[in-house]
Amino acid sequence: MSLAIISPGRNPQIWIDALKYSKPDIDIQVYPDIDRPENVEMALLWQHPPGYLKNFPNLKLISSLGAGVDHILSDPAVPEQMPIVRIVDEKLTWSMTNYVIMGVLNFHRQLTRYQADQKRKVWDMSNPEIPVKVGVMGVGALGGDVLDKLNYMGFSVAGFGFSEKSDFPYPYFSKNQLKEFLSEINVLVCLLPLTPETEGILSLELFKNCQPGTFLINVARGKHLVEEDLIPALEKGYLSGALLDVYRKEPLPTEHPFWEESRIQLTPHIASVTNPQAAAPQIIENFRRLKSNQPLVNLVNRERGY
Amino acid sequence: MSLAIISPGRNPQIWIDALKYSKPDIDIQVYPDIDRPENVEMALLWQHPPGYLKNFPNLKLISSLGAGVDHILSDPAVPEQMPIVRIVDEKLTWSMTNYVIMGVLNFHRQLTRYQADQKRKVWDMSNPEIPVKVGVMGVGALGGDVLDKLNYMGFSVAGFGFSEKSDFPYPYFSKNQLKEFLSEINVLVCLLPLTPETEGILSLELFKNCQPGTFLINVARGKHLVEEDLIPALEKGYLSGALLDVYRKEPLPTEHPFWEESRIQLTPHIASVTNPQAAAPQIIENFRRLKSNQPLVNLVNRERGY
Repeated sequence: MSLAIISPGRNPQIWIDALKYSKPDIDIQVYPDIDRPENVEMALLWQHPPGYLKNFPNLKLISSLGAGVDHILSDPAVPEQMPIVRIVDEKLTWSMTNYVIMGVLNFHRQLTRYQADQKRKVWDMSNPEIPVKVGVMGVGALGGDVLDKLNYMGFSVAGFGFSEKSDFPYPYFSKNQLKEFLSEINVLVCLLPLTPETEGILSLELFKNCQPGTFLINVARGKHLVEEDLIPALEKGYLSGALLDVYRKEPLPTEHPFWEESRIQLTPHIASVTNPQAAAPQIIENFRRLKSNQPLVNLVNRERGY
Repeated sequence: MSLAIISPGRNPQIWIDALKYSKPDIDIQVYPDIDRPENVEMALLWQHPPGYLKNFPNLKLISSLGAGVDHILSDPAVPEQMPIVRIVDEKLTWSMTNYVIMGVLNFHRQLTRYQADQKRKVWDMSNPEIPVKVGVMGVGALGGDVLDKLNYMGFSVAGFGFSEKSDFPYPYFSKNQLKEFLSEINVLVCLLPLTPETEGILSLELFKNCQPGTFLINVARGKHLVEEDLIPALEKGYLSGALLDVYRKEPLPTEHPFWEESRIQLTPHIASVTNPQAAAPQIIENFRRLKSNQPLVNLVNRERGY
């Protein structure tokens, strides 16, 4: 029984080291050097070549190398009954929340204004704070942690999600209440899973319903944003700025207009990076459970898409 | 019985409005147009002209217009037995904590690195986080709130203060343990009151004992920092950067070298601004208590200096 790592363009060594630390005798094969495909019963995937899984006649389990599984579900060659598991990592949640709170505070306390003032040697004490109410789209493990921490810090918050929720601890808006949600908030955080329903949700149509000058933070997936709509939304004043960590194409091509737009702050998909040391024991645990026919952990519900 | 507002160079109208909202019949005289000094029994001060209080033969109480009272205690003409009260404002604590957390997160998540990368269109995902442990000097209402919020967010924290404390909820270092405190942390937040003991505490001598590359946040008073020591401490690598909100001279003179030092981020004393609407009821309450001879609220201990 062999484990395949299929993660083109990334160095797999830290994953190999972390997995062998948890289970020294594990048999690992790494793409593209997989010479015994018939032995592979579990595959760890991050942006694998579509259709590639057909090479594994005895594959029984797919694990994402991160929290998201959209890169797996988008491949029609993934067998319909194949179980898929993902990484649930507290450190990943911690990093993501810190990144979002950084974005909220920099908007609230006008960091870029003061940076510009420093350059011009301007001392302007007027109106130091923009009052904010933060809306989080996607209220799972990640969005829930952002809401809890901002609430503890004393910020007004609201959540938005596709399902109905009856006992959510914060003001909650479900899919038919999107306009109402947007009218309540002026910082919009996207932490939705990427599904057919959420792809392209951050569009001019949505931005039109925001409070003028809303600040956007997208830390979910590049495909949530209709990228060509963002600069027009800034020009029209629907949004006043954005902090983006994810893009349709990564690395972001150098000719992309986002690089040079001063109202957009970019980071290179680092809001939250799965830590192999923290994630390896979960992968090994599922490898063991697969072998001994026990229920898997962090199993993805394919209908929900996460 | 009259209340004097002595706050040269600032517009007193928002204070007058807020005080009259709380007590419409109050008699307020405003510097420099004080024509009945003999009626003044309470004075609200912010950077008053030293010695000016001698004009008030019937003065019974001094109130600071903010949280700090160093601007009052530094005037030898302030009578020794005169009670001094200050503003304790939750909103002030809230703003201060948000500002400090912003500084911590921007250092931890390397905001300025990613801003520079964006300018050069560089996509560099390596090492996205600097591990941090935050040390807070001054563990009163402000420092305590910073520690509580950072701890809730999952950061390692430590406190430093001049007095001994036996049951502090976080690792605590008192004045003889400064070196040990500095060796534990790599973000240094100054929230000390300004007293003869703390003036100039942020000096090259202290920075030498920091972990190399420590990040400094000074939100207390300009006089805590020996300003001419900061750039040398950056050059020598004792510190990697600083976020400053307060200066020896404010507004910071345009010829001051801090403006053009890229490792120093400046804001114009806006980390926390006393809100007249929130503070006025406390001032009125003390005005009433003075009249009816009741114990004052937020009374300053002059030996401690706050």
